[in-house]
Amino acid sequence: MKAAVFYGKHDIKVEEVPMPQVGDRDVLIKVEACGICGTDVHIFEGDKGAAACTPPTILGHEFSGVVEATGRLVTKIKAGERVSVDPNHYCGNCVYCRDGIAHFCEHMTGYGTTVNGGFAQYCSVDERQVYRLGKHTSFEQGAMTEPLACCLHGIDQCGIRPGSHVAVIGGGMIGLLMVQLSKLSGAAKVVLLEPVEGKREMGHKMGADLCINQIGADAGRLLAEQGISRLDTVIECVGNVNTIRQAIDLAGKKSVVMMFGLTKPDDELTIRPFEIFEKEIELKSSYINPYTQKRALDLIDSGQVDVQSMICETAGLEDLADILSSPERRSMGKYVVSPWN
Amino acid sequence: MKAAVFYGKHDIKVEEVPMPQVGDRDVLIKVEACGICGTDVHIFEGDKGAAACTPPTILGHEFSGVVEATGRLVTKIKAGERVSVDPNHYCGNCVYCRDGIAHFCEHMTGYGTTVNGGFAQYCSVDERQVYRLGKHTSFEQGAMTEPLACCLHGIDQCGIRPGSHVAVIGGGMIGLLMVQLSKLSGAAKVVLLEPVEGKREMGHKMGADLCINQIGADAGRLLAEQGISRLDTVIECVGNVNTIRQAIDLAGKKSVVMMFGLTKPDDELTIRPFEIFEKEIELKSSYINPYTQKRALDLIDSGQVDVQSMICETAGLEDLADILSSPERRSMGKYVVSPWN
Amino acid sequence: MKAAVFYGKHDIKVEEVPMPQVGDRDVLIKVEACGICGTDVHIFEGDKGAAACTPPTILGHEFSGVVEATGRLVTKIKAGERVSVDPNHYCGNCVYCRDGIAHFCEHMTGYGTTVNGGFAQYCSVDERQVYRLGKHTSFEQGAMTEPLACCLHGIDQCGIRPGSHVAVIGGGMIGLLMVQLSKLSGAAKVVLLEPVEGKREMGHKMGADLCINQIGADAGRLLAEQGISRLDTVIECVGNVNTIRQAIDLAGKKSVVMMFGLTKPDDELTIRPFEIFEKEIELKSSYINPYTQKRALDLIDSGQVDVQSMICETAGLEDLADILSSPERRSMGKYVVSPWN
Amino acid sequence: MKAAVFYGKHDIKVEEVPMPQVGDRDVLIKVEACGICGTDVHIFEGDKGAAACTPPTILGHEFSGVVEATGRLVTKIKAGERVSVDPNHYCGNCVYCRDGIAHFCEHMTGYGTTVNGGFAQYCSVDERQVYRLGKHTSFEQGAMTEPLACCLHGIDQCGIRPGSHVAVIGGGMIGLLMVQLSKLSGAAKVVLLEPVEGKREMGHKMGADLCINQIGADAGRLLAEQGISRLDTVIECVGNVNTIRQAIDLAGKKSVVMMFGLTKPDDELTIRPFEIFEKEIELKSSYINPYTQKRALDLIDSGQVDVQSMICETAGLEDLADILSSPERRSMGKYVVSPWN
Ligand SMILES: NC(=O)c1ccc[n+]([C@@H]2O[C@H](COP(=O)([O-])OP(=O)(O)OC[C@H]3O[C@@H](n4cnc5c(N)ncnc54)[C@H](OP(=O)(O)O)[C@@H]3O)[C@@H](O)[C@H]2O)c1
Ligand SMILES: NC(=O)c1ccc[n+]([C@@H]2O[C@H](COP(=O)([O-])OP(=O)(O)OC[C@H]3O[C@@H](n4cnc5c(N)ncnc54)[C@H](OP(=O)(O)O)[C@@H]3O)[C@@H](O)[C@H]2O)c1
Ligand SMILES: NC(=O)c1ccc[n+]([C@@H]2O[C@H](COP(=O)([O-])OP(=O)(O)OC[C@H]3O[C@@H](n4cnc5c(N)ncnc54)[C@H](OP(=O)(O)O)[C@@H]3O)[C@@H](O)[C@H]2O)c1
Ligand SMILES: NC(=O)c1ccc[n+]([C@@H]2O[C@H](COP(=O)([O-])OP(=O)(O)OC[C@H]3O[C@@H](n4cnc5c(N)ncnc54)[C@H](OP(=O)(O)O)[C@@H]3O)[C@@H](O)[C@H]2O)c1
Ligand SMILES: [Zn+2]
Ligand SMILES: [Zn+2]
Ligand SMILES: [Zn+2]
Ligand SMILES: [Zn+2]
Repeated sequence: MKAAVFYGKHDIKVEEVPMPQVGDRDVLIKVEACGICGTDVHIFEGDKGAAACTPPTILGHEFSGVVEATGRLVTKIKAGERVSVDPNHYCGNCVYCRDGIAHFCEHMTGYGTTVNGGFAQYCSVDERQVYRLGKHTSFEQGAMTEPLACCLHGIDQCGIRPGSHVAVIGGGMIGLLMVQLSKLSGAAKVVLLEPVEGKREMGHKMGADLCINQIGADAGRLLAEQGISRLDTVIECVGNVNTIRQAIDLAGKKSVVMMFGLTKPDDELTIRPFEIFEKEIELKSSYINPYTQKRALDLIDSGQVDVQSMICETAGLEDLADILSSPERRSMGKYVVSPWN
Repeated sequence: MKAAVFYGKHDIKVEEVPMPQVGDRDVLIKVEACGICGTDVHIFEGDKGAAACTPPTILGHEFSGVVEATGRLVTKIKAGERVSVDPNHYCGNCVYCRDGIAHFCEHMTGYGTTVNGGFAQYCSVDERQVYRLGKHTSFEQGAMTEPLACCLHGIDQCGIRPGSHVAVIGGGMIGLLMVQLSKLSGAAKVVLLEPVEGKREMGHKMGADLCINQIGADAGRLLAEQGISRLDTVIECVGNVNTIRQAIDLAGKKSVVMMFGLTKPDDELTIRPFEIFEKEIELKSSYINPYTQKRALDLIDSGQVDVQSMICETAGLEDLADILSSPERRSMGKYVVSPWN
Repeated sequence: MKAAVFYGKHDIKVEEVPMPQVGDRDVLIKVEACGICGTDVHIFEGDKGAAACTPPTILGHEFSGVVEATGRLVTKIKAGERVSVDPNHYCGNCVYCRDGIAHFCEHMTGYGTTVNGGFAQYCSVDERQVYRLGKHTSFEQGAMTEPLACCLHGIDQCGIRPGSHVAVIGGGMIGLLMVQLSKLSGAAKVVLLEPVEGKREMGHKMGADLCINQIGADAGRLLAEQGISRLDTVIECVGNVNTIRQAIDLAGKKSVVMMFGLTKPDDELTIRPFEIFEKEIELKSSYINPYTQKRALDLIDSGQVDVQSMICETAGLEDLADILSSPERRSMGKYVVSPWN
Repeated sequence: MKAAVFYGKHDIKVEEVPMPQVGDRDVLIKVEACGICGTDVHIFEGDKGAAACTPPTILGHEFSGVVEATGRLVTKIKAGERVSVDPNHYCGNCVYCRDGIAHFCEHMTGYGTTVNGGFAQYCSVDERQVYRLGKHTSFEQGAMTEPLACCLHGIDQCGIRPGSHVAVIGGGMIGLLMVQLSKLSGAAKVVLLEPVEGKREMGHKMGADLCINQIGADAGRLLAEQGISRLDTVIECVGNVNTIRQAIDLAGKKSVVMMFGLTKPDDELTIRPFEIFEKEIELKSSYINPYTQKRALDLIDSGQVDVQSMICETAGLEDLADILSSPERRSMGKYVVSPWN
């Protein structure tokens, strides 16, 4: 089969490789769509921290496809079914798994990070990672299950209730999902702060009540002018210490500030604890996608979350390295790879 | 001024009464709209339990209007402002008030129940009970703030998250609000169970994904046929022990069953504790509207909750007794009284 | 090896059986202590409901011992280590497992119920079920990990905070654990209601502030006389509809009523929903021991929970059938079987 | 009466002043004990931020005494009763009061900060602020109700469950209360980090399992050596950015870091958001004492929390200025003023 193999920093080659082995409990998936995500970029750039990856590996952890074959002990799924994958497999045996917070598993297997993933024509994964797609869900949408599941884990910790006031900072793929999930959680007002006009327009389409270009603007004053004097939740979706600081500044009394964006491992943020105290802010973060995959699938299939509009292009395996190398291309939106293109 | 005075069971007279006194911290409101609610019916019928009412009293606790005058010490509100009222005033002094669960206040004052309310041309209420209406909110909508605030207190306890599956039993005013709030909380599927076809149609308009006439039907099977095999939350909005039992039957593993409807004080419900155990159900109830008034106003003003479509008629004070006497009329929808009609 | 094999209602034989097979991921345990629990009695009596058991089976799900051997792929545990067992193994593959509520697993394996358990000299269990005992923990105490883990899952749902007022109904093994856990959660007052004097004395030793024989007494009045006018939590540990009803009666405003005791599958409880409403009670249940095993071990090892004092006798395998047949013996306290006696 | 009047930075005079006026809803208290707290020091030092205080004012907000007289409309309390005071009075009228988070009240009255408090022989306070002392509670203990109530509000947000592992940094009055409350919440292990040996000894008396002098030590390694490899909660009780940073370093996966200590308004803390992300830490703070006064009283009266042992001296009004001026004296422990000494 054809696969894009990662050999080390800036080195990905598309080549013919053997078909993956299918263990007794494995499901062989013919990959139809696999999203390119910031983590792939980090690995491609040789960054430490985001994920443990020992080349040569086939990257790609946001994927969907059709079941080609199943191992001897697989019971739930059969050939021909349309599925997507939860790339994070937990051991079930460590202190975190047995404590109900398996996403901190000490022996996590990551399809597309620690073992081969979806930038290939086929991928073999443990049955437990496989979810059936709903009948209204396309493969491209199905490939977006994992990022949406991450966002659900984040939003579950944000305490949004019907009538809440929420701000989202950053209008990339993730920020636009968070705008939708905030609205979907009943927020009476959702504000998007984003410098790029096109993304603000997209924010409006995704349900934001107000979209602000906060560069050079006093965002707090702009909000106050629109009658939003108290934010219950602020969700940072950039991964930048300046916007995290802004999130804390904008947050109201008894609010949640969710640092959803990922900073670099060494980035430092300076805050005034007294400000946290005076407002009794909860400063939180959200780590991957535990226990939320099924709800993500349901929300995509029911049409409540739009994961399609942010996809700017479906590329072939050959184009992957160029996309990973080019911030300009990536700033256009979300890319999806179809290994059969 | 003109008022509908309740003198005892089945005895309401519209008469000329003196204007209400306005204390130092009171706000005199020219009433524009006042909803008729089940509690008014119970008091009119002489039922015990729902609310402590010593006639003669002017009933009506769901109302809005314009500020006519304010007491000497009132600071927040001034004449001419459009407002609605939280009818439940808490003492601030009892064990419950000081414990942050003021809705169990041992010395509650209820405008429209323990003291004069809104079925009159004017009503005087403590400043703390008065909320400004948003500019997109009509008086009729404003009068619906209190029932919506009750529903918010209920929904806050239902644990609905984006992607949840919810059933609502009963498609009256309250059930239709709960359908909307469930959808607004991100439910992927909301099912309404309601015998009357017109109300099921309204349920669809309010966002229900499925509306079922469960009389003579196996609701569980119908749900399963539609791919809904596990309900996370079931909200009973009838106030009947049979529908509560049905709610428990339909509820899935680790679900919440919210008994929002009010049964008669002596009504008895028979359940099997083993069923609660096997599914680890949380069986809950919701008592009035603590701390939710502001969010209710925001949701009405932003247009996210439709409180208008269920209103079937705006009547005059003279018509009140007839509406309270007639279940047939009331089954048509929600009635609002305008004391100036 | 020697084992007590259950062949069907009232039929247990102690016999020589082959040693259990040890799979690649299994741990062979030389059993040192195995508790006798109500579920064993139910199975022995041929009751339906409590657990799926297809004879012939070796019962016993509360056990500890020494690792005798380990399968080829076992990494965490090695021969000679002192361990206890979580008897409930989850598939990791069903909708509940993948949703983080694995105790509702559709394919649960129960050591001592669906497969062979601890009333034998050896038992082989999946590595994921095995926990190392702390150095201050005896085998008898270690055998009590599972019941304590069940109680922790229950107490986690009871909302007890420092300063709470709690009542526990029933002073058997479970009730006495709940008294301790309530106190350990910071309850300012814990009341035990229990008819048998000896168990009330034990209640005092376990930290109850007040122990009441409520038979023929007005428990509410007795509590009021002791200055306890509002219970935040009531935990039923009998498994009887009358004591559940009493729990609801005694519960205060905004309280939790935990039905921890197991009624028979067909037992019916009659409640007044209006009472639930007026007090905004949360009526809950607690299903087995998900994710709490490690904390149970820590609390036993630190000496914070006394699981020893309730043990009345350590018996041999030959005595098991008699204990299971005799309610009188069982009313003396908790029995533990040592298969080497 | 005699009172210590604060006239501005470093200027407190003990003088004869008129008796306080007693409004219709007020309770006149003969003060028996009034604690000296860090906030008093800050005000005495002229610091901004901690509390709005316009001299001349009588400070002192942690006090107890005997009811001397009551206003015309007071119903709950009568002369001769022993009471303590919640110094923070909320307006009931602002957005926060009506939202159930009254401690953010926009019009808070603070006895001992914004209006006259307890460093005087008499003080008049609104009836809603007055709580009856239990019969086992001394006046000195009663004066400690407010600090304990603050700690309860903090601990309620810490998520401690039976079996948790907790570290407390700082062994002053507050840290020692937090050690007790952590233990009282069921923590299996509580570690105190504190440089002063005497305070570590006190920590042991208050129930800490381990007391460490972390100056020049690798606290994480010391904990690991004692078998504490994962802290669920770390409570900072110093008010120093270095110890907050240490709290974050020590915190385990999915933990709560409570910044309970108050830093100066301008103090800056530098953190790595990536560390928060990797461990999914919740970084929180706790603002004063909402809704927790009654539980604090119960815990003192039941003897479960020792608020006495940290009191080093009961001084007279004349000594107040010296204590406020002298960090050395204050480092000896908690001071209480008796205005009749
Ligand atoms: N916690 C988790 O589990 C998890 C999971 C997935 C992703 N993430 C993180 O979430 C973040 C967002 O992901 P993404 O895929 O949406 O990335 P993205 O496409 O790079 O989006 C970031 C957006 O923020 C905008 N931005 C830049 N500076 C800004 C500022 N000062 N104020 C407001 N917006 C600003 C960017 O605009 P420009 O186009 O002008 O740069 C861009 O639109 C990343 O850090 C990612 O690592 C976290
Ligand atoms: N907890 C609180 O704080 C709170 C606050 C407000 C109201 N409530 C309670 O909420 C309940 C609903 O109020 P509402 O104003 O909406 O009352 P409503 O207009 O009487 O609505 C009840 C609805 O349930 C329907 N119904 C009757 N039997 C049913 C069945 N077997 N299955 C399904 N639906 C059935 C009724 O249909 P028909 O028209 O055919 O009868 C009606 O449409 C009342 O009990 C009220 O007291 C509670
Ligand atoms: N939810 C779970 O996960 C879980 C886990 C384990 C156990 N359980 C259940 O917990 C319950 C208790 O277990 P256990 O092992 O402690 O049983 P147990 O030893 O039979 O204890 C029950 C106790 O309640 C007493 N009692 C009887 N009638 C009473 C009354 N009217 N008022 C107060 N006390 C009364 C009994 O006294 P006498 O001696 O006079 O009968 C006995 O002391 C059982 O139903 C068991 O199935 C539940
Ligand atoms: N959030 C709230 O609502 C609230 C309420 C009350 C109080 N507080 C705050 O809580 C904090 C503690 O109050 P307190 O009355 O207990 O103050 P305190 O008596 O000054 O106690 C602080 C303790 O921390 C110790 N310490 C200093 N450096 C340390 C280090 N590097 N590591 C560990 N311990 C260290 C101090 O030791 P030394 O004696 O050697 O300095 C002292 O024992 C204050 O910041 C106060 O403002 C907050
Ligand atoms: Zn693991
Ligand atoms: Zn009250
Ligand atoms: Zn399972
Ligand atoms: Zn206020």
